[in-house]
Amino acid sequence: MNTKTEIDTMLQTIFPDMVQWRRYMHMHPEVSFQEKETSNWITQRLQEMGCKVETDDSGYGLIVRIQGEKPGPTIALRADFDALPIQDEKECEYASTVTGAMHACGHDAHTATMLGIASYYSSIKEELHGERRLIFQPAEEITPGGAVGMIANGVLNDVDAIYGVHLWTPLPYGMVASKGGPFMAAPDEIYIDIKGKGGHGGLPHETVDSIIVGSAMVQALQTIISRNLNPLEPAVISIGSFHAGSTANVIAERCKLVGTVRTFSEEARIRIKERLHAIVKQTAELYGAVAALDYRYGYPTVVNDPIEAERFFKVAPDQFGHAAVQQSPLIMAGEDFSYYLQKVPGCFMFVGAGNEACHAVYPHHHPKFDLDERSMLISAKLMITMAEDFASENKRS
Amino acid sequence: MNTKTEIDTMLQTIFPDMVQWRRYMHMHPEVSFQEKETSNWITQRLQEMGCKVETDDSGYGLIVRIQGEKPGPTIALRADFDALPIQDEKECEYASTVTGAMHACGHDAHTATMLGIASYYSSIKEELHGERRLIFQPAEEITPGGAVGMIANGVLNDVDAIYGVHLWTPLPYGMVASKGGPFMAAPDEIYIDIKGKGGHGGLPHETVDSIIVGSAMVQALQTIISRNLNPLEPAVISIGSFHAGSTANVIAERCKLVGTVRTFSEEARIRIKERLHAIVKQTAELYGAVAALDYRYGYPTVVNDPIEAERFFKVAPDQFGHAAVQQSPLIMAGEDFSYYLQKVPGCFMFVGAGNEACHAVYPHHHPKFDLDERSMLISAKLMITMAEDFASENKRS
Amino acid sequence: MNTKTEIDTMLQTIFPDMVQWRRYMHMHPEVSFQEKETSNWITQRLQEMGCKVETDDSGYGLIVRIQGEKPGPTIALRADFDALPIQDEKECEYASTVTGAMHACGHDAHTATMLGIASYYSSIKEELHGERRLIFQPAEEITPGGAVGMIANGVLNDVDAIYGVHLWTPLPYGMVASKGGPFMAAPDEIYIDIKGKGGHGGLPHETVDSIIVGSAMVQALQTIISRNLNPLEPAVISIGSFHAGSTANVIAERCKLVGTVRTFSEEARIRIKERLHAIVKQTAELYGAVAALDYRYGYPTVVNDPIEAERFFKVAPDQFGHAAVQQSPLIMAGEDFSYYLQKVPGCFMFVGAGNEACHAVYPHHHPKFDLDERSMLISAKLMITMAEDFASENKRS
Amino acid sequence: MNTKTEIDTMLQTIFPDMVQWRRYMHMHPEVSFQEKETSNWITQRLQEMGCKVETDDSGYGLIVRIQGEKPGPTIALRADFDALPIQDEKECEYASTVTGAMHACGHDAHTATMLGIASYYSSIKEELHGERRLIFQPAEEITPGGAVGMIANGVLNDVDAIYGVHLWTPLPYGMVASKGGPFMAAPDEIYIDIKGKGGHGGLPHETVDSIIVGSAMVQALQTIISRNLNPLEPAVISIGSFHAGSTANVIAERCKLVGTVRTFSEEARIRIKERLHAIVKQTAELYGAVAALDYRYGYPTVVNDPIEAERFFKVAPDQFGHAAVQQSPLIMAGEDFSYYLQKVPGCFMFVGAGNEACHAVYPHHHPKFDLDERSMLISAKLMITMAEDFASENKRS
Repeated sequence: MNTKTEIDTMLQTIFPDMVQWRRYMHMHPEVSFQEKETSNWITQRLQEMGCKVETDDSGYGLIVRIQGEKPGPTIALRADFDALPIQDEKECEYASTVTGAMHACGHDAHTATMLGIASYYSSIKEELHGERRLIFQPAEEITPGGAVGMIANGVLNDVDAIYGVHLWTPLPYGMVASKGGPFMAAPDEIYIDIKGKGGHGGLPHETVDSIIVGSAMVQALQTIISRNLNPLEPAVISIGSFHAGSTANVIAERCKLVGTVRTFSEEARIRIKERLHAIVKQTAELYGAVAALDYRYGYPTVVNDPIEAERFFKVAPDQFGHAAVQQSPLIMAGEDFSYYLQKVPGCFMFVGAGNEACHAVYPHHHPKFDLDERSMLISAKLMITMAEDFASENKRS
Repeated sequence: MNTKTEIDTMLQTIFPDMVQWRRYMHMHPEVSFQEKETSNWITQRLQEMGCKVETDDSGYGLIVRIQGEKPGPTIALRADFDALPIQDEKECEYASTVTGAMHACGHDAHTATMLGIASYYSSIKEELHGERRLIFQPAEEITPGGAVGMIANGVLNDVDAIYGVHLWTPLPYGMVASKGGPFMAAPDEIYIDIKGKGGHGGLPHETVDSIIVGSAMVQALQTIISRNLNPLEPAVISIGSFHAGSTANVIAERCKLVGTVRTFSEEARIRIKERLHAIVKQTAELYGAVAALDYRYGYPTVVNDPIEAERFFKVAPDQFGHAAVQQSPLIMAGEDFSYYLQKVPGCFMFVGAGNEACHAVYPHHHPKFDLDERSMLISAKLMITMAEDFASENKRS
Repeated sequence: MNTKTEIDTMLQTIFPDMVQWRRYMHMHPEVSFQEKETSNWITQRLQEMGCKVETDDSGYGLIVRIQGEKPGPTIALRADFDALPIQDEKECEYASTVTGAMHACGHDAHTATMLGIASYYSSIKEELHGERRLIFQPAEEITPGGAVGMIANGVLNDVDAIYGVHLWTPLPYGMVASKGGPFMAAPDEIYIDIKGKGGHGGLPHETVDSIIVGSAMVQALQTIISRNLNPLEPAVISIGSFHAGSTANVIAERCKLVGTVRTFSEEARIRIKERLHAIVKQTAELYGAVAALDYRYGYPTVVNDPIEAERFFKVAPDQFGHAAVQQSPLIMAGEDFSYYLQKVPGCFMFVGAGNEACHAVYPHHHPKFDLDERSMLISAKLMITMAEDFASENKRS
Repeated sequence: MNTKTEIDTMLQTIFPDMVQWRRYMHMHPEVSFQEKETSNWITQRLQEMGCKVETDDSGYGLIVRIQGEKPGPTIALRADFDALPIQDEKECEYASTVTGAMHACGHDAHTATMLGIASYYSSIKEELHGERRLIFQPAEEITPGGAVGMIANGVLNDVDAIYGVHLWTPLPYGMVASKGGPFMAAPDEIYIDIKGKGGHGGLPHETVDSIIVGSAMVQALQTIISRNLNPLEPAVISIGSFHAGSTANVIAERCKLVGTVRTFSEEARIRIKERLHAIVKQTAELYGAVAALDYRYGYPTVVNDPIEAERFFKVAPDQFGHAAVQQSPLIMAGEDFSYYLQKVPGCFMFVGAGNEACHAVYPHHHPKFDLDERSMLISAKLMITMAEDFASENKRS
């Protein structure tokens, strides 16, 4: 197996390509489940490296199996490649050329990194133990996400471990972070539809005022977090949208609330869902209205395997120095990498990509989002090191 | 002066014209402050009767002064002629020919009635005591309404008393109603704009959730009616519209509430306005937001002069029989006739216009609104009788 | 029949006794349904005048039937005689001698007035038309009140009309007031008992917090007045008492709310009761608690017969001058005189008793309550005049 | 130094005394800051062992300094000895003999354990490295607690490390648990006093209803946890007591709320305190009332030194086996051991004391609280092992 220095050298060599690839993708974004050209372009890049590319019919996903000549485990590495329906507001040469679409979450860099990894592994097959399965996944940004279909189609068959990285601008370039157990939230969505009885604004007694019902519901919902959940259980319920009525002097018949629920355990999720159903139904009845709750499950919680997280805290300091490695707090955002982790052990990791010098100071999903491209190098090293550490511990004869 | 029978006969003669006029207007509605053609058409009808028509430059209002040859008081009678921005859904020959505009409140019939009255008074000038000033007013349906400008221009100069009628479909044809003192509500409007601090739905602690503020405000507002107002003081506050946010997982920065306030006394109006200002300002501050209340005065309360209301309860039973005359409850709708009553004594009256046989079963402002046209005859008789009763009591030498 | 002047003279003669009687009673108060000595003392006074006194076994009530020698109707006049459990704080010779009991509502003066009326009618039997039935009623201050039992025992048998007076310190001495139709409120009481699940203050998720439920209930109740009742219907719901828990760090299992409901129509009463039941039951369930509402009916609304109220507005100005007679607003206090008015036509009236010169400036039920004793003279005249006006209109042969 | 086996043997020998001591104390409880007899009794026991006992004048605290003959660090071990104002409901020979006082939290066993430790250390002075300072602390159960005074008087002078144990019935006998960093909550208390304006239940507009204010406050408070705190920050606000008014038909002038706040960081504590002040002040003003918040600090958060907690996770498995050692979750209860940990590094630990066979199934502060007395042996071993491990790492020459 290559030494740390050899890996470094080989990745450094390919880094200029990674930058170029990332910028090309940044200029040509495609939103979730519409990444046809992106997928074709990735395929071409992989074929240029001599990789055999398999397509996945649940979307535009691609799979590359790099089979080492020595026996060993099958280890999956995953990158996603969809963009967001956001208008790019950056002023730079590689800004998006597509109106209303933008790589504002760094998936372009995830994919460019994985292309670099493909190049690396392709060149060392002789000494590689087992298979490295590179997953290029579409549609991470929308529920239910691209992972579900690829898993259903067997992308994880025979996989022993899986690793993935999110480049993360809130974390400064140079840092890496992860966490054992629950790591990123399960982000569910709620849609509440209240039906009262409209009427003249001056004759409330002939109506059922749906704004009264909606307001009371918003207040009652607060007690789920403040009273019904274990205080040690982190969770959020936010109503992001409240719409009812259209004019001053007519009492609104309909009131619609939309919101998000973020949890880190199935127990909390179920408790919140139960309480929401009770509050929505009974608050409406209380005022003589009717209401329906549509509780839509988002991705599950990202739960890192404890042993694989330990691996991270072992290999990362070795690679990047102790000061560069952080224990991550729980993260309120979600990731469909969670589906892979429900099937096989693995670890999802953050690689710092924030850097004022590169204008990489905006949060993910911001119209001016950018990242320090050197983070791709760190990401590639981290995933390769995790995989090879696993392989060295799980050699097969 | 004419006897009751003579008036009856003369009005019966002109009634077919009144119906024809009303239907023409019904087919050609114009909305508030845009009644140019309507005003021209009314002018032509009046000129055909030999009336001299004065225009009012605050809108398309018209004034006809019919000067009796005998001495006596100046008595104003008022009709309004604007339509509403509602699509007519009736199926009948005289349905509106204008898309999105309709006489859904009966002002066409008010004006047709007043044309009938003009015809009547024009024919009896010799025996008429004093002046009858017929006011054709535009724009009753929108704040601040057409009455304000006409009064500012002097339409009430030297007027001793004023009478007006609303044809009223909730009251069956054949009935008439009024009330001394406060009669119809002052309908004010409120616009509340809350500014919190938006942010990620999973990170509420970094935001100020404007939906929480708006909901708390709606709840706090209820106590104005339930706790701060004298229980003997009828009043309503309704929030008709509540809009905030646009998506599930972003906490809404802005929240806008719009509503109506209905009162019957200046004291209640002031108390409500004060409490609203306190609740809006302090509820927002309580949660770290800021909020502004724009309290827009609508028409004042319609307050009938007690003596003129007594006159109604004297002359109406005599004309229409005791069983036909009702003491009206307070009415939650508003009327800009209130402005006239602030300047001179007078009485506003309801004339029943509901009748299933004529499909006149829909409330005012309904897309299928219609009325029993015979109510115009009763309305004309009522206004003439009120005027002549006043005149006979206030003869001048 | 006596002229107004003759009545005046005769009452003036007996007025010193009325004052003495009132002061004796004031010094010897007995609270509701415990007025044994008071009843005996009244009996003695009546017997001294030669009246035959009947006792009523539902309490300590007394009935005197004064039968005129001429034919005519039976007219009842009513006074009450119970005191309140309040400590007298006045400093005067006739202050209460009983600790914790006081005539703080003027019932002593009501009874002294009725004794004066008894004396008057006893002396004019020869010319009296019909019967005057004087009702001395106990226990007006507590639900269900002394009237119920006396009516059940037949005190209203054959009665054609009934009149009663409350001496009223908010009204200045010299004034009288009443109102046709609904006049004084139906004062019901509500008792709400919420049962949650207690527990450690730091572990709310293991409990059902009854204070959350009670607070939400108080807020929801406000909407009954602000949204569910016709704005023209005067009504009040007040929660006067809210008690739950006993310490900082234990979540309260029980929460008790007690309040009052005041209405002027059976329709409003039923609507409020229904809404209260829904709100109490469903707010509790909403939070996983259970709650019971005990809705206790108080006296019905005092509803004056319109014809008898008209009589008041006819005879009172004649007796006391137009300036002395007021149209009363609705009064939020209750009176069990309402039960009599449910059975026979009649009128309840207020006689002004406020006068700074007599220290009669405190509201009813205040520890320093006192009244201008001359109001007794006006009260006696008013009741006699009402009765004789009725009699003169309803002579029988 | 003694081997693990030697310590075991020596503690086994003294265990019967420990049980006898614990039971004596259990029969003779004294509540916080009134532990005079208890303190005398402990002194006698210590003197019987030949210990020199120092008294602390801030309460009934005692200090024993056992000076080893070899050089080494000064290590403090702490036990508390106050009882609770609870009536013992157990039926057993050693039930409390004092009405209304009971060792319902296990402090009797804490002290008996420390007496055993005193006996142990007294017998091995020759080979002991440095000082072992045994702290017998009064008044752990009430704010501000007995630790504050003893620390002010210098009990921690020259102390290098401190350890303490709570016997814990929710944890089964045989288990031990602790946690690095924040471990037990800071339990503060809040007292809210609202002053509105009382009045007649039927005339709300003349009052400021303090129950409306209190209820709105309870609702607004929920948003501190649900909206204002980082969802990752565990915290609780519970209103345990809500009292206002005394009768159905009088609107309450005063409303008093009492509650608890539990936090694990100073940042959360400050944020909650600030938000409480804003909500209390502005909710009151919103309704025209005034309110005062008295925020009383309880103990600080118990924060274990990370290195000392690591020591626990090193020595405990060695002593009791891996399966017996748990990572504790955050605990919502408070402990004034936190004050020691603010001054010197150390570790607070839980020793399982629950056992159905001993009826040790009730939570702390329950009237039937009991514990498995063998937990004292484990506790003694744990504290000694922690101390000697520290000493062996911090030998001084």
